[in-house]
Amino acid sequence: MSELTHLDETGSARMVDVGAKAVTERVAVARGAVTMDAETLRLLREGGHKKGDVIAVARIAGIQAAKRCSDLIPLCHPMMLTSVTVDFEFDETEPRVEISARCKVSGQTGVEMEALTAVSIAALTIYDMCKAVDRGMHITDVCLVEKQGGKSGHWMQAK
Amino acid sequence: MSELTHLDETGSARMVDVGAKAVTERVAVARGAVTMDAETLRLLREGGHKKGDVIAVARIAGIQAAKRCSDLIPLCHPMMLTSVTVDFEFDETEPRVEISARCKVSGQTGVEMEALTAVSIAALTIYDMCKAVDRGMHITDVCLVEKQGGKSGHWMQAK
Amino acid sequence: MSELTHLDETGSARMVDVGAKAVTERVAVARGAVTMDAETLRLLREGGHKKGDVIAVARIAGIQAAKRCSDLIPLCHPMMLTSVTVDFEFDETEPRVEISARCKVSGQTGVEMEALTAVSIAALTIYDMCKAVDRGMHITDVCLVEKQGGKSGHWMQAK
Amino acid sequence: MSELTHLDETGSARMVDVGAKAVTERVAVARGAVTMDAETLRLLREGGHKKGDVIAVARIAGIQAAKRCSDLIPLCHPMMLTSVTVDFEFDETEPRVEISARCKVSGQTGVEMEALTAVSIAALTIYDMCKAVDRGMHITDVCLVEKQGGKSGHWMQAK
Amino acid sequence: MSELTHLDETGSARMVDVGAKAVTERVAVARGAVTMDAETLRLLREGGHKKGDVIAVARIAGIQAAKRCSDLIPLCHPMMLTSVTVDFEFDETEPRVEISARCKVSGQTGVEMEALTAVSIAALTIYDMCKAVDRGMHITDVCLVEKQGGKSGHWMQAK
Amino acid sequence: MSELTHLDETGSARMVDVGAKAVTERVAVARGAVTMDAETLRLLREGGHKKGDVIAVARIAGIQAAKRCSDLIPLCHPMMLTSVTVDFEFDETEPRVEISARCKVSGQTGVEMEALTAVSIAALTIYDMCKAVDRGMHITDVCLVEKQGGKSGHWMQAK
Repeated sequence: MSELTHLDETGSARMVDVGAKAVTERVAVARGAVTMDAETLRLLREGGHKKGDVIAVARIAGIQAAKRCSDLIPLCHPMMLTSVTVDFEFDETEPRVEISARCKVSGQTGVEMEALTAVSIAALTIYDMCKAVDRGMHITDVCLVEKQGGKSGHWMQAK
Repeated sequence: MSELTHLDETGSARMVDVGAKAVTERVAVARGAVTMDAETLRLLREGGHKKGDVIAVARIAGIQAAKRCSDLIPLCHPMMLTSVTVDFEFDETEPRVEISARCKVSGQTGVEMEALTAVSIAALTIYDMCKAVDRGMHITDVCLVEKQGGKSGHWMQAK
Repeated sequence: MSELTHLDETGSARMVDVGAKAVTERVAVARGAVTMDAETLRLLREGGHKKGDVIAVARIAGIQAAKRCSDLIPLCHPMMLTSVTVDFEFDETEPRVEISARCKVSGQTGVEMEALTAVSIAALTIYDMCKAVDRGMHITDVCLVEKQGGKSGHWMQAK
Repeated sequence: MSELTHLDETGSARMVDVGAKAVTERVAVARGAVTMDAETLRLLREGGHKKGDVIAVARIAGIQAAKRCSDLIPLCHPMMLTSVTVDFEFDETEPRVEISARCKVSGQTGVEMEALTAVSIAALTIYDMCKAVDRGMHITDVCLVEKQGGKSGHWMQAK
Repeated sequence: MSELTHLDETGSARMVDVGAKAVTERVAVARGAVTMDAETLRLLREGGHKKGDVIAVARIAGIQAAKRCSDLIPLCHPMMLTSVTVDFEFDETEPRVEISARCKVSGQTGVEMEALTAVSIAALTIYDMCKAVDRGMHITDVCLVEKQGGKSGHWMQAK
Repeated sequence: MSELTHLDETGSARMVDVGAKAVTERVAVARGAVTMDAETLRLLREGGHKKGDVIAVARIAGIQAAKRCSDLIPLCHPMMLTSVTVDFEFDETEPRVEISARCKVSGQTGVEMEALTAVSIAALTIYDMCKAVDRGMHITDVCLVEKQGGKSGHWMQAK
């Protein structure tokens, strides 16, 4: 039967014991997007060529947030991430900025939350830096895309 | 002309000078949702009655994240929030959990980012606590709903 | 001869070198209590049934504090905790709330400080949430109860 | 009727709105103790003369913890403390180390939690630095001693 | 007579009471440099045009460190900075990168430490990102350049 | 050809993947100095005998900063340091305080940044505690002195 493992039998929160799980190479990829006005995206894209700093700042914010994940998400385990990358793509048809993050660790539990946190904080950073011109942006479609390692093996989000 | 105020004339990031802005009472309300399987929502709802802890944990994570906002979002100003509330509603038709956060300060700049950060981290916490039963959840529609105080006065998201 | 290992031969503080110690499974259990008025305990207990959030908040605060221990206690080593649980019991005869915390790690040094920090911060959180009705509460009897792993093996506090 | 102000009418946790409270000069004094073996206290006292660092480290840990209080105690408001002092006395008759902390702010809410947190973390730091020679120490009698400022005026713990 | 104000009459550390000081507009400017091989500077400069990210990352690290100053420097007061900027210049004759930081606050104590911390962490970030090609870099000449506000008025470093 | 490994082929920042590197015992030693007036050094030295706390506080600040390095330097990997020591020497001929830090880990990447961060924050703490009597101090000559472990083996700074 399905169960929320972060709750014990009395419904109390706990940091699940992962001590008996195998140390394996674990990878997680998460994705999300910030929808915005076409004009806002244009400012960002120009920044991508002439100024560059909005995306650079969002990338750093995302990487740092991945490292701070266990401090932000109460029941997450501390993790010694061996790699974090955060990438951005401009989609002019929507218009929106697509964000993806990839985290890696050799450990006893997965890094899904680290990747999802990196995407979320990178998205919030874009919102922060563009909000003076576009208050109506939305952060949307933040989800796990792929997961490797651990007992459940290789998982990919169904299309 | 529109401008990204977090960049100076050379395109470099900066923490904008708010020293000359008036100290006013400022409020921001943000919203977002976590979409999930009907069965996952059922587990959460039961938790809401018998166990309670998932939502309680997500609420605390959101409140704490609001306080840590300037540490997470690189160009945000430190803020002495006077109030933070985070609320949750279960929408069974989607199915999804709706999250809203309301932040207040008496200060020289708004608290939109604090409210948006509270929603995002509360959403990630729900994801974390339910991911063992539902890896396909999405965090979606995170946006600013309302903003009071400061030069721009009262703003509400258009329907 | 007895020695304070956190001081070198000149009396200067240092983070002791644990690099040569064996990696073993280590567990620590700590305990403490918050004494309070009978009426305050009654409010908390009712909360335990109808509202629940005081204890839920204190539990989360304790778990998060365990993870942040090396950031709070200057000479503690960083630790990748594999499990943290914090539990509460209501003792109406005193009256008081008893708190216990159990931490686990596979590492080169013990997790006593993590468990003691979890108890202390959970106790402070109860104090914070009840202080509007009872300023005279005391946090008391915070101590190590049990310790497993490492060179010293299994230790239990004498009754 | 008495009420736990950190819970709203549905029992959910919230960071109480202090926006309407007056900005006044607020002071809080807290106290606590670490009981220990006579031999451990002797090592500490000698340190006080020749080595000095245990108490110096505990003092710093306490001061820093006061500043980090709103990050540790979930529903505490951020505070711009204007002063923190942490003091220690050796009581050989018990034997124990008495710790007291005094915090000051000009703000809309009190600094009791900051003073109590300073005492608790200073006590844990003493425990950490002496645990190699005395695992049976207890942190005890942590309480608020005095409180000035705000609506409730001057309060002192009854003897 | 001169005195170290962070120590009380017994030589114990304390967070100095600034509660009686006037709230004034305070500005501090600090400066420092990272000396390096000519080839390393060339890689950085090219980055300035084509890649850009080293300097962008160092700037963000400096701004964030300014906000975290009271968490890093034990006796610093928490501060609600209203502005932080960090700038870089390439000096090919040395060769070195010059870093300057400017912090502003309306408060009861100065922001020298915030500006000096921003410069130091920005410098360390440059070191980190270039160390794979040049382990012999030095961080040097970190100092206060200018200070406005408060009792001491306008101060500038003598040439 | 030389390359800045923290940038990918498009010049974007990333946390380099160290997952394939061997776990070896790694040590790094860094050094730096705070130059000051002779009178300031005299106050510090007297402190070393009668009061002691300036150096004790700076040492603790340095040790704590080493542990927080991956939180401060954006692309640093989290590290479970097994040992940190920070030492000070008074040089009256300059006059200046020399600071050295030594960090150790058993891990997949070096601890140079941890040692350099410890030196820098210890230096800033000395500056903070002495700035009331000497605003013209400089932090200077912060550099890596020695590095052991990893692919590059034993490296020492050339004289």
